[in-house]
Amino acid sequence: MPLKKKPVTGMKDILPREMEIRNYVMNLIKETYGMFGFVNIETPCVEHIENLSSKQGGENEKLIFKIMKRGEKLKLETAQSDADLVDGGLRYDLTVPLSRYYSNNANELPSPFKALQMGNVWRADRPQRGRYRQFMQCDIDILGEPTILAEIELIQATSTLVGKLDFQGFTIRINDRKILKAMAAYSGFPEEAYDEVFIILDKMDKIGLEGVEEELVKAGYEKEKAEKYLELYREVTPDLAGIRYLKEKLTGFLDPKCAEDLETIITSVEAVKTADFKLVFDPTLVRGMSYYTGPIFEISIDGFGGSVGGGGRYDEMIGRFTGQNTPACGFSVGFERIVMLLLEKDYQIPSRKEKKAFLIEKGIAGDALIKVFEEAKAERATGVQVNVVQMKKNRKFQVEQLEKEGYTEIRSFYVEK
Amino acid sequence: MPLKKKPVTGMKDILPREMEIRNYVMNLIKETYGMFGFVNIETPCVEHIENLSSKQGGENEKLIFKIMKRGEKLKLETAQSDADLVDGGLRYDLTVPLSRYYSNNANELPSPFKALQMGNVWRADRPQRGRYRQFMQCDIDILGEPTILAEIELIQATSTLVGKLDFQGFTIRINDRKILKAMAAYSGFPEEAYDEVFIILDKMDKIGLEGVEEELVKAGYEKEKAEKYLELYREVTPDLAGIRYLKEKLTGFLDPKCAEDLETIITSVEAVKTADFKLVFDPTLVRGMSYYTGPIFEISIDGFGGSVGGGGRYDEMIGRFTGQNTPACGFSVGFERIVMLLLEKDYQIPSRKEKKAFLIEKGIAGDALIKVFEEAKAERATGVQVNVVQMKKNRKFQVEQLEKEGYTEIRSFYVEK
Repeated sequence: MPLKKKPVTGMKDILPREMEIRNYVMNLIKETYGMFGFVNIETPCVEHIENLSSKQGGENEKLIFKIMKRGEKLKLETAQSDADLVDGGLRYDLTVPLSRYYSNNANELPSPFKALQMGNVWRADRPQRGRYRQFMQCDIDILGEPTILAEIELIQATSTLVGKLDFQGFTIRINDRKILKAMAAYSGFPEEAYDEVFIILDKMDKIGLEGVEEELVKAGYEKEKAEKYLELYREVTPDLAGIRYLKEKLTGFLDPKCAEDLETIITSVEAVKTADFKLVFDPTLVRGMSYYTGPIFEISIDGFGGSVGGGGRYDEMIGRFTGQNTPACGFSVGFERIVMLLLEKDYQIPSRKEKKAFLIEKGIAGDALIKVFEEAKAERATGVQVNVVQMKKNRKFQVEQLEKEGYTEIRSFYVEK
Repeated sequence: MPLKKKPVTGMKDILPREMEIRNYVMNLIKETYGMFGFVNIETPCVEHIENLSSKQGGENEKLIFKIMKRGEKLKLETAQSDADLVDGGLRYDLTVPLSRYYSNNANELPSPFKALQMGNVWRADRPQRGRYRQFMQCDIDILGEPTILAEIELIQATSTLVGKLDFQGFTIRINDRKILKAMAAYSGFPEEAYDEVFIILDKMDKIGLEGVEEELVKAGYEKEKAEKYLELYREVTPDLAGIRYLKEKLTGFLDPKCAEDLETIITSVEAVKTADFKLVFDPTLVRGMSYYTGPIFEISIDGFGGSVGGGGRYDEMIGRFTGQNTPACGFSVGFERIVMLLLEKDYQIPSRKEKKAFLIEKGIAGDALIKVFEEAKAERATGVQVNVVQMKKNRKFQVEQLEKEGYTEIRSFYVEK
């Protein structure tokens, strides 16, 4: 029986053109973070089902591709639920594997451990345009570095990376979860309300200051608190002055070191930046995940909605996974999104090699054939890609096809008459 | 609950040192085959369970990691067997996905299609030293090229690759399944005996000519046939003269074009070789898989047992998978084996960048901190990897560790007193 031709639901075959872009971006990532001392690691795609179901993965745990037990361990007759039938699953992110990797190999790893991971993850999400059930994640993390050296290096390296990608300009927004919390505390919100308050605050760019105030009131919070909260947001500016304003204003609610650190991060990154980007303090930046404990940041490319990367400090998460407290700060680069943007603008890879095709007429043999290979060898030695192929009956069409594939020179070798 | 620390049975975490070697070899493979016009492709790691169970995968089909159905499709109560519970599996090789990919995307692919695939495959084999349940395969195939141009390009490209890997010397052995069959036919073996005869022949390097003859007789074949068969092997030489000898001797059993083609492959590859290797005609080369239909070849590195790559022509397999006849010729590079050999000999990557570490004393801040980052930026701009880290209390130990990690210069920055 012939094969089912299509890939499994929600996954895709990657054609040569996209693959070229993907390889280019992957190499750029490895090279750029490598310059900052990050080392590449890899974990198995399959994880213990217990590790994937540890409740730290949130909604993603519902989307696991589960792997069935094998051999004698598979007992269909006595199985009470599907949990009895599985022992593994495909990883849904790179954080769980990183935590396991770190606790398994800490003795053999540098300290601090600056890790670069690129790998596929799988989520059985409802299939939709542009979102796939297998996709590449690219996570860069510094484990074991409690100071803002981690934040500075991560933002520096990532802005260097994005700068090399030839987008017109980009913006990095930065905030701190401690500032978010202090602003809420100062306004009188109780700690258990923070998550809800931040979800509403996160809509600022869509519904504006008044919208946020309205929604807070609608959600049942006192108008007085909402007003005090929004007053802060009206006063604060997206720069160092804004940070200093909050440091002063939030006295008693915010550790002044937090504001000072944020200032140092911004001035340090600004001082040595290698690309043209804006680094702004954005006190409305929330970054959904509640596991962040300190500075948070997000990169967006001007003219495109949505972010192409983000991250922050999460000093408590690795400890919850491994039982051993470990300061951690990370950046996740939106690999699939960057590839999509480059494909959409028909990006031409700068380092691309010259491509030539040699067409051999049928019947060329012996020394004449060897002469073709010798010429191909000589071209390749100078760095030119040479594709040696049989000449087709419809040579004109063949040439057109090769030109479409980017071959700039097409030479034909005929049998000597 | 903390995570299970160890990877799942039979799979492994890849440490930075191995990862560096893997990345190096992967890049070399992409670059080398790229020079010959091969394009990179990728398929999902998950395949339809029907495609994986098509009976073309032989023993590997018993080793599939199966993926359970999800949501409403999973009906535990009414399941008769495990087949009712699964809809996918992890690919056990790259050939099934390549066949599916080719039939799904042929219209958008160049013709001939020169494909380079590197990707993990999974087999639930009994775990043993050096063999893992997740491992990287690297397959290079030319689909749609019926002539020996495919063989020549594949052997040229692969020998160029291995030549760059800095082993002391290597040998490529080449044969043709048609010659194997003609030799058996000439000696009087019936067609249905070929597989068994070839399995015995394959032991030649271990048990010698007499051993093969003995085993053939022990397996029930007439002594006369065995003698006639081995007489051929006594006469034939591992060179062009050997091929010509068989062309003559096997008249009526072997298409003379097959011998001529083999001669052309050898002389063409010899004429343009870029590395120091021996290319020998080896009429005892069998290469287990019965799907090969023409030339077969294998690379081994002198001084190491076993092969580091092999392949051949398999003109009928893609058709069996896709229902459409497609000439095909491929090479599979033993990626994991090459990585293991390089690790064992503590291979130093030639293109490795210089690595420096900057140690910052606690308390460095403001302009002093920025100055460190500026110096790091300047070094990176010249291609040096710079790792900026906090100075530890035990600075001496820290320096030793960094030296072990390959840092050649370690600079310390102290707070000005």
